Amino acid sequence: MRFFSDNAAAACPEAMAALAEANRLDTAYDGDGFSARLDAAFSALFETEVKALWVATGTAANALALAALCPPHGSIVCHRDAHIQNDECGAPEFYTMGAKLMLAEGEGAKLNPDAVAALLATIRDDVHQVKPHALSITNATEYGLVYTPGEVAALGALCAARKLGFHMDGARFANAVASLGCTPAELTWKAGVDALSFGFVKNGGLSAEALIFFKPELAAATLYRRKRAGHLLSKGRYLAAQLLAMLDRDVWLRNARAANRGAARLAEAAGERLVLPVQANEIFLKLSPAEAHSLRASGFDFYDWGPGEARLVISWDSDPAHIDALAAAIRSL
Amino acid sequence: MRFFSDNAAAACPEAMAALAEANRLDTAYDGDGFSARLDAAFSALFETEVKALWVATGTAANALALAALCPPHGSIVCHRDAHIQNDECGAPEFYTMGAKLMLAEGEGAKLNPDAVAALLATIRDDVHQVKPHALSITNATEYGLVYTPGEVAALGALCAARKLGFHMDGARFANAVASLGCTPAELTWKAGVDALSFGFVKNGGLSAEALIFFKPELAAATLYRRKRAGHLLSKGRYLAAQLLAMLDRDVWLRNARAANRGAARLAEAAGERLVLPVQANEIFLKLSPAEAHSLRASGFDFYDWGPGEARLVISWDSDPAHIDALAAAIRSL
Amino acid sequence: MRFFSDNAAAACPEAMAALAEANRLDTAYDGDGFSARLDAAFSALFETEVKALWVATGTAANALALAALCPPHGSIVCHRDAHIQNDECGAPEFYTMGAKLMLAEGEGAKLNPDAVAALLATIRDDVHQVKPHALSITNATEYGLVYTPGEVAALGALCAARKLGFHMDGARFANAVASLGCTPAELTWKAGVDALSFGFVKNGGLSAEALIFFKPELAAATLYRRKRAGHLLSKGRYLAAQLLAMLDRDVWLRNARAANRGAARLAEAAGERLVLPVQANEIFLKLSPAEAHSLRASGFDFYDWGPGEARLVISWDSDPAHIDALAAAIRSL
Amino acid sequence: MRFFSDNAAAACPEAMAALAEANRLDTAYDGDGFSARLDAAFSALFETEVKALWVATGTAANALALAALCPPHGSIVCHRDAHIQNDECGAPEFYTMGAKLMLAEGEGAKLNPDAVAALLATIRDDVHQVKPHALSITNATEYGLVYTPGEVAALGALCAARKLGFHMDGARFANAVASLGCTPAELTWKAGVDALSFGFVKNGGLSAEALIFFKPELAAATLYRRKRAGHLLSKGRYLAAQLLAMLDRDVWLRNARAANRGAARLAEAAGERLVLPVQANEIFLKLSPAEAHSLRASGFDFYDWGPGEARLVISWDSDPAHIDALAAAIRSL
Repeated sequence: MRFFSDNAAAACPEAMAALAEANRLDTAYDGDGFSARLDAAFSALFETEVKALWVATGTAANALALAALCPPHGSIVCHRDAHIQNDECGAPEFYTMGAKLMLAEGEGAKLNPDAVAALLATIRDDVHQVKPHALSITNATEYGLVYTPGEVAALGALCAARKLGFHMDGARFANAVASLGCTPAELTWKAGVDALSFGFVKNGGLSAEALIFFKPELAAATLYRRKRAGHLLSKGRYLAAQLLAMLDRDVWLRNARAANRGAARLAEAAGERLVLPVQANEIFLKLSPAEAHSLRASGFDFYDWGPGEARLVISWDSDPAHIDALAAAIRSL
Repeated sequence: MRFFSDNAAAACPEAMAALAEANRLDTAYDGDGFSARLDAAFSALFETEVKALWVATGTAANALALAALCPPHGSIVCHRDAHIQNDECGAPEFYTMGAKLMLAEGEGAKLNPDAVAALLATIRDDVHQVKPHALSITNATEYGLVYTPGEVAALGALCAARKLGFHMDGARFANAVASLGCTPAELTWKAGVDALSFGFVKNGGLSAEALIFFKPELAAATLYRRKRAGHLLSKGRYLAAQLLAMLDRDVWLRNARAANRGAARLAEAAGERLVLPVQANEIFLKLSPAEAHSLRASGFDFYDWGPGEARLVISWDSDPAHIDALAAAIRSL
Repeated sequence: MRFFSDNAAAACPEAMAALAEANRLDTAYDGDGFSARLDAAFSALFETEVKALWVATGTAANALALAALCPPHGSIVCHRDAHIQNDECGAPEFYTMGAKLMLAEGEGAKLNPDAVAALLATIRDDVHQVKPHALSITNATEYGLVYTPGEVAALGALCAARKLGFHMDGARFANAVASLGCTPAELTWKAGVDALSFGFVKNGGLSAEALIFFKPELAAATLYRRKRAGHLLSKGRYLAAQLLAMLDRDVWLRNARAANRGAARLAEAAGERLVLPVQANEIFLKLSPAEAHSLRASGFDFYDWGPGEARLVISWDSDPAHIDALAAAIRSL
Repeated sequence: MRFFSDNAAAACPEAMAALAEANRLDTAYDGDGFSARLDAAFSALFETEVKALWVATGTAANALALAALCPPHGSIVCHRDAHIQNDECGAPEFYTMGAKLMLAEGEGAKLNPDAVAALLATIRDDVHQVKPHALSITNATEYGLVYTPGEVAALGALCAARKLGFHMDGARFANAVASLGCTPAELTWKAGVDALSFGFVKNGGLSAEALIFFKPELAAATLYRRKRAGHLLSKGRYLAAQLLAMLDRDVWLRNARAANRGAARLAEAAGERLVLPVQANEIFLKLSPAEAHSLRASGFDFYDWGPGEARLVISWDSDPAHIDALAAAIRSL
């Protein structure tokens, strides 16, 4: 019973069916009929005109977004625990060609305007220091917290005031939306977000993520960068088809809700052990080495996460019986 | 009836079945059981120890291979018509971080040692000029010709003498092997090749190419570069599974033979119209604008390829009836 | 008696005096009084508002200019024999972070609109090919020819029509102006040039070149790039002082005229041996190996330049007696 | 009376005389007689075989050194207050092409093995995280402290154990050596340092810094990178001549001792106001805004350095009368 990561889950039936549907001769790259429908489908979802590009990984989505928002001689403010800082092997630096990440603090990998403003205040206005050009936040965060539309908007206002591009790493955007009950629009462009990495792979997709530009003009150079990075798949229709299938009838929300529900069940069982509130599909527990060993001996797999803590992630398809068993095991520790 | 590109074809049944087989919980990235079998499977095919990495595109495979062979301040010799020069939007420059491509000449996009040596002779030995570090050839070439093992070995000997890394862009490697009837080993490492982009997508794959290092030590930094480029898919098992399925029982050869056979049939019909011999699955025809128009009016789609010429590509699954119809149409021009 | 290169000459007295003048405590980097006067001094010379930055080398000036005009995913059209292509070890690729140089043809390293347009016509309008963003010419060229204001303007019109930035590598701009008798304005911005690498080092400077932006807005990001490249000298005043001293009373023109005069004297002596007309301070001669040997045996040093040809360069301070001796020696071959 | 920075000082007479001495026709770039003597001169100083390259700025020296020690997908450990992090506009990221700086802590911008090891321990051994490849320290530090040979050696041992390249930013290396009374060898290669940016400009040079490789094989690719970065001056002899002149008869030590002496005089006057011990030529004082205003009103210029603190830097040529006046003014606050 594995609770390592939603990355490891299977693809959902709708995504698999989409592959079969796309499995016929069509124009290569993004000239096919599925890819052609992406802009419209995501524009409808977001209630505004967007440009939507498929890419194969969240890292590529993030790095392409950041390259669109920050020049090589600029910097990007993000949380010290951000995925773009710690888990992408320098992809932002590669795609931006040497921009710096400036690391801000905040509990649960969450930033607020004060922390960002304090960091910005350390930068002198001369050519000796790299100038901030963008802010990147993760929603839900790397610690499973969500930014509310109001919290995003507060950061968006800061970005507007300081002329920073605003990127949201939404590897678990679906989980955030499902948790908040808000619209995708409220959580993004209405709150000032310029570019969103909209994750599908952790949420039941197979190999497609969506990179959404709320300022469509940002997409033009990105199309070149995507090709240049080897991310313009020649049979891109299989990616587009997955995305469309998961937008259709809100499969993405259904999957995210299932994962969030499982996490909530575990959170209830965990009680005082919770390191942070559970707002999406990840839970962080206080767990002694002995307790961790005991859980593992009972067949539950998960990551240690710092000393005395563990991370468990629930997927769209985590078996409810496994979750119940885990909940019981945690209760009985 | 479309003869634009083998990029546009469907995926073969074995590749599709592999996706279904891989569609279950497994370790993320390349920690899964399918990925774990790649080295062994390709080592068996190539009769030597290789490192095999899946990537989603041929452009990524090429660019990663070149980055492993050439430093930013070096250059890569290739044909003026090479895909890496003309059709990858500068991916080699991006991944190598600014290496130069040095363009050599040769009919049918094919290089020989004399042409390469002549180009190398133009470079002075001082720090003002970028120094060649690698040679890249395409087999089958962009014009559908094949290099024989002997021809590759002649270039390999030059590379060894001049201390150049040797890369083969094998987007249509399967077609070349099928055409030549040689072993994969004879066409690559036995002839001095260090790294091969082994194409599967044009040959019935869905989204997986294999990057093969015959010098396994070249793979180590490439693993970082692949992640850094956003090419380490979190559900990489779907890519590995496709590759394994197409190696199994030589599906890759079966597909390539089918495409080559179709091309041969058209070549026979084309006769004197052929611009170049047909050695793989592409044919280049002399075709006046009126003739091109006539073929298109009959329902055949293809690319113009320079003035008075056309390119037609046969896929693994091109309908024999379409091929026959096209052959007849060409004959009756 | 060395005729290798004007790079090897001494610095002129005015430049040396400027160093002494600047040798006192002043604000670091470009905050000093000399640097502060550069924009005004060059704006006066060019009869329009320019931004003028000192840099230590022509390579840096060229590469910074190109980085201001071309994104990493773009290309720069230049002559096959351009210094930026052959003699800067990939500096344009480094500073632009991977842009391509597209090589056009033309006698004497000179481009014309037809050659450039023909090259541009080879580029398809899709994301698979790198798009041209800039044109770079060298005036005087690497073969000692000059572009007239009219010739520059014809290329400038092409750039305007095709939305290309227009850069002039003016390592020997002074020699070109001196030769043409035109104004610096006529040869640059009035003819559509956006950025000029204005060479002083070959012309009697010690360590300062001027990078001139005729579109001042291009300078802003360049200031960061200059620092980032380690080209913001902490005692920049010594560079600024050299430039000001050589602008003062047209020292730059005086020096260039002296060099051109010497070259003209040799050209007269060379007669039929000339490979190309002598329009600046370089001469290219047909010279058999025996003749080259004979000249060297008489104490004249110079570079071979392809088979049966030699290059001789006259400096601002070449000794007239040496030039006379060389002229006589050439006549008596 | 300016105490802003040693960057702002004049050049010393020996450096100026060297320019005059070099002011004659010689081979361009680094083919001249002065450049040819650099390796030997620095090898003698360091009592081991070194490769010594001139460059025009400390930023270029640092960035070239780091590029020699760290690949694009690696990281460099340095202090949070390091010049390479805060004051070079991302030059390390530019030259390394996107390596990360990992920031460690320590008082007075000084690192120790425990702090470095603790930071290294945060990096997992997988391809998702950038791996450390080098350590860079500044000696004397950005806060005017010196590392002793023993302290450097402790870090050098860590580097050896962890296979990290070891770079020393010696913008004020002369001040450190003068302060410690050790040999240059003891402070560098004998303590494990691989590459040293040996500063001359802050210490009475005009435009030349020395980049020293104690592992001579690191220099080969650096020669290309230097050219590629536009840092191979065509009249490099003026830089080499400065360095030789300042090595001759230990001018570099004489200058550094003078600056250190001045700082010591001020330190004595400052007493309890000192934020940190004064070990080189910089002093950091607690100074209220009113006190700072009072000093400035008396004609003393310096930088504020954080709230309630000020930085004063003494140069090789700071006027002793000014220093005495400042000491008195500080005493009388």
